Amino acid sequence: IRSKLPHIGTTIFTVMTNRARELGAINLAQGFPDYDAPTRLKDLLALHVAAGQNQYAPMIGVAELREQIALKLGASYGRVPNLDSEITVTLGATEAIFSAVVSLVHPGEEVILFDPSYDSYAPAVISAGGRPIHIPLDPPKFQIDWDRVRAAITPRTRLVMINTPHNPVTTVIPRKELDILAEILRPTDALVISDEVYEHMIYDGARHASIVEHPELYERGVGVFSFGKTMHATGWRVGYAVAPPDITREIRRVHQFNTFSIAHPLQLAIADFLKEVPEHNAGLGAFYQAKRDRFLELLRNSSFSWTPAAGSYFQLLDFSAITRQSDVDFADRVLREAGVASIPISPFYVSPPKLSVLRFCFAKNDSTLEEAAERLCKL
Amino acid sequence: IRSKLPHIGTTIFTVMTNRARELGAINLAQGFPDYDAPTRLKDLLALHVAAGQNQYAPMIGVAELREQIALKLGASYGRVPNLDSEITVTLGATEAIFSAVVSLVHPGEEVILFDPSYDSYAPAVISAGGRPIHIPLDPPKFQIDWDRVRAAITPRTRLVMINTPHNPVTTVIPRKELDILAEILRPTDALVISDEVYEHMIYDGARHASIVEHPELYERGVGVFSFGKTMHATGWRVGYAVAPPDITREIRRVHQFNTFSIAHPLQLAIADFLKEVPEHNAGLGAFYQAKRDRFLELLRNSSFSWTPAAGSYFQLLDFSAITRQSDVDFADRVLREAGVASIPISPFYVSPPKLSVLRFCFAKNDSTLEEAAERLCKL
Ligand SMILES: CSCCC(=O)C(=O)O
Ligand SMILES: CSCCC(=O)C(=O)O
Repeated sequence: IRSKLPHIGTTIFTVMTNRARELGAINLAQGFPDYDAPTRLKDLLALHVAAGQNQYAPMIGVAELREQIALKLGASYGRVPNLDSEITVTLGATEAIFSAVVSLVHPGEEVILFDPSYDSYAPAVISAGGRPIHIPLDPPKFQIDWDRVRAAITPRTRLVMINTPHNPVTTVIPRKELDILAEILRPTDALVISDEVYEHMIYDGARHASIVEHPELYERGVGVFSFGKTMHATGWRVGYAVAPPDITREIRRVHQFNTFSIAHPLQLAIADFLKEVPEHNAGLGAFYQAKRDRFLELLRNSSFSWTPAAGSYFQLLDFSAITRQSDVDFADRVLREAGVASIPISPFYVSPPKLSVLRFCFAKNDSTLEEAAERLCKL
Repeated sequence: IRSKLPHIGTTIFTVMTNRARELGAINLAQGFPDYDAPTRLKDLLALHVAAGQNQYAPMIGVAELREQIALKLGASYGRVPNLDSEITVTLGATEAIFSAVVSLVHPGEEVILFDPSYDSYAPAVISAGGRPIHIPLDPPKFQIDWDRVRAAITPRTRLVMINTPHNPVTTVIPRKELDILAEILRPTDALVISDEVYEHMIYDGARHASIVEHPELYERGVGVFSFGKTMHATGWRVGYAVAPPDITREIRRVHQFNTFSIAHPLQLAIADFLKEVPEHNAGLGAFYQAKRDRFLELLRNSSFSWTPAAGSYFQLLDFSAITRQSDVDFADRVLREAGVASIPISPFYVSPPKLSVLRFCFAKNDSTLEEAAERLCKL
C-alpha cells in the first residue's frame, strides 16, 4: 500500500494516553477533564434517548441546537449568524476543520499554518491535495511574526489557519493582530479558518477576539467551536463550524458525505442545556483560571519556570533549569520518573527548534493537580 | 468561492425528508425506522453517561466494542479480525467510506462505481482527488455486468466499490460473483470497499456473502458496517471499517484527523448490548422479511408491480402501469397526490437510463405501512 500520508504516525495524544495508562501515570497529556459533564446535561441526554430521538438528525444539525449556537455567538461576539445558512454541527471541531479544509482547498493550493500547529491541520491539508506552508512560532513567546506571513503569501495561497487560544502553546491572538491579518489578506482571495475551541478559557481579564466578530475576516472566514470543551464532554464529539453562506455551502458539500449528521440525542441534550443554563459558558473563564492558578501555586517550589497560560486549559512549564534534554526525552523522563504524562511541543513542528517546555493539562480535579504537582516538584 | 464539488447539491435524502415534513407526508424516503432502538440499549446508554463515560474514546474505538465486532464477524463470516489492527469504529458507515476512500485513493487514480451508486461514493472519490468511473447497472434487474468491469480496469484503477445488499436497488451480490471480482482484480493492485450495512437484511433464505469471508478479496478489502442499521438507531452514527492491518493503518491515518474518535458512551452501550443480547442480529432477517412481505401484501391491489427486494430495508415499486413520467416527476406526484415520500433512482446515476421504479423504505411500523399502502393503492 503506497501511503498518502506516509509521514503520519499515531497522534501524540494517543501515544501519551496509552503510555500513561500502561504505566499507571497521571494523565496531564491529552486534553480532557477528569470531572464529569454537568448532571443536568446527562439527564437531558437520557430523556431524549428514552423519548426515542434516536434516528438521523438533519444534516446541518438540529434546529434547536443551531438556534442556541446563534444566540451564544450573538451574546459573545455581537453577531447572530443565520441558522440555516451559516451554522453546521460537526463531529467535534476535528471534523469541522477536516471538512472545511477538504472542501475549500484545491489540489496544489497552499495553506499557511503556524507551527507548532495542532496535529490535524497538516494531514487535513494533505488529504485535500493542498500544500502546508509552515511558519514557525519561535520560543519562548511563540508570537506570530506577521512579516513572515506577508512574505509567505503567494497567488496559490488558499487558506490561513489560526488557532486562538492556541493549542499547544496557550497564546492568544489579540484583536489588533486580526486586523493585521485582514490587511495582509485584503489583496488576496485567501480564506481563514480560526480554531477557537478554547474561546471561553481566557485569563487575567483578557477578552477573546473571535473571527466571528471581525467583519472583514469573517467574510472570508470559518470559526470552529467545540461543545466537548465547553460541556466537559470531550467524548461526545459535538462541535460546529460558523461561516458566511457561500463558504458554509462548500463545507456542507463535504460534511454531508463525510459524516452526514451528528448523534441526534447528544445535539438535543446540549441544546436544552444551553437553554436551561444560559449562564454556563460565562462561568468557564473563572473556573479554569482558578485551576491554572492552583496548579501554578502548587508548583511554586518546583524547578520549573513559566509564564501563566493566556488561554486554553493547558500550561507550559519550562524545564531548562532541570536539564538540557530535548522536550521529547524529558517528557519521557517525567512520565517514567514522576509518573506524570505531558505533551512535548516539538512533534507539532515540521522543523522543531530547541524547546525546553512541556504542556500540561490542568482541566483536572484539585486532588489530581495536587498529586501531579507533588510529583513534579521532585524533579 | 470556486467549488471543489460543483455538481453536488443537497443529498436527495435530505431533500425528500424536508419535503415530506413540509407537506406532512408519510416519509418512506430516507432510510430509518419509525420504531425505536431497543429499550435495553437505551438504558445502557443512560447508565454509561451517568457513570461518567463522557470523555474521549480511544481513536480506534473502545476495546469492548471492537471485541464484540470481532466476535460478531467471527460468528457471521468465520473470520475473527484482530481487535487492534483490523477494526476501526467510525462515525457511521458514512465516515468509514469517506476516510477509507480519502486515505486509499491518490490524486488521478480511478475508482470503479456501480450506478446507481450510493450518493456519498463519488463525492468521497472527488474529495480524494480521484476519478470516479461509473459502470451502469441496467434496469430492470440492475445486475453487475462483469465484462464491463473487466473492460474498465486500467493501470490507474485503485479501487472498486461494491454494495451488497445494494442501496438503492436492493440486489445482492452472490458469493460466486465475489469470486469473479477476485479473479478480475488478481493481476492488479486495486483495492475493494464493500459497503455491507444491510448485511442482516437479506431474504428468502439467501445468505449474505461478505468480503470478510472471502480470503482473496479481503486481502485487498475494506468491509463497511453500521450499527445504525442493526440497532434501529440511525441517529447514533456508529459504524465500523474492517480491513487487513496494512489497509487499516492507512484508514486510521485519515480517521484520526478527520473525526478522531466516536462518541464514547454510545460505543459502550452498543458493546454491552451485543454482549447481553448476542442473538439480536440473528433476528433481523426474519423481522425485516415480515415487514417487506406485509408491505407487498398491502399493495396487492395497487397498480404497482415489483420483484420482492433481495436485501436491504427498501422495496422498489415499478410504476410503468401507472404513467410514463420520469421517476423524479412521479416521486413528486406520489408525494403531493398520495402524501407518501419515496426516493427516485435516477439521482444515483451520472447518466440515468429511463427508469420507472421508486424506492420505498419498509422499516416502519405496520400502521405506517398500512396507511402508506392505502394511499399508494389510490394511484
Ligand atoms: C483529539 S485528542 C487531543 C485532545 C486535545 O485537543 C489536546 O490534548 O490537545
Ligand atoms: C444518510 S441519510 C440516508 C439514509 C440512507 O442510507 C438511505 O435512505 O438510503
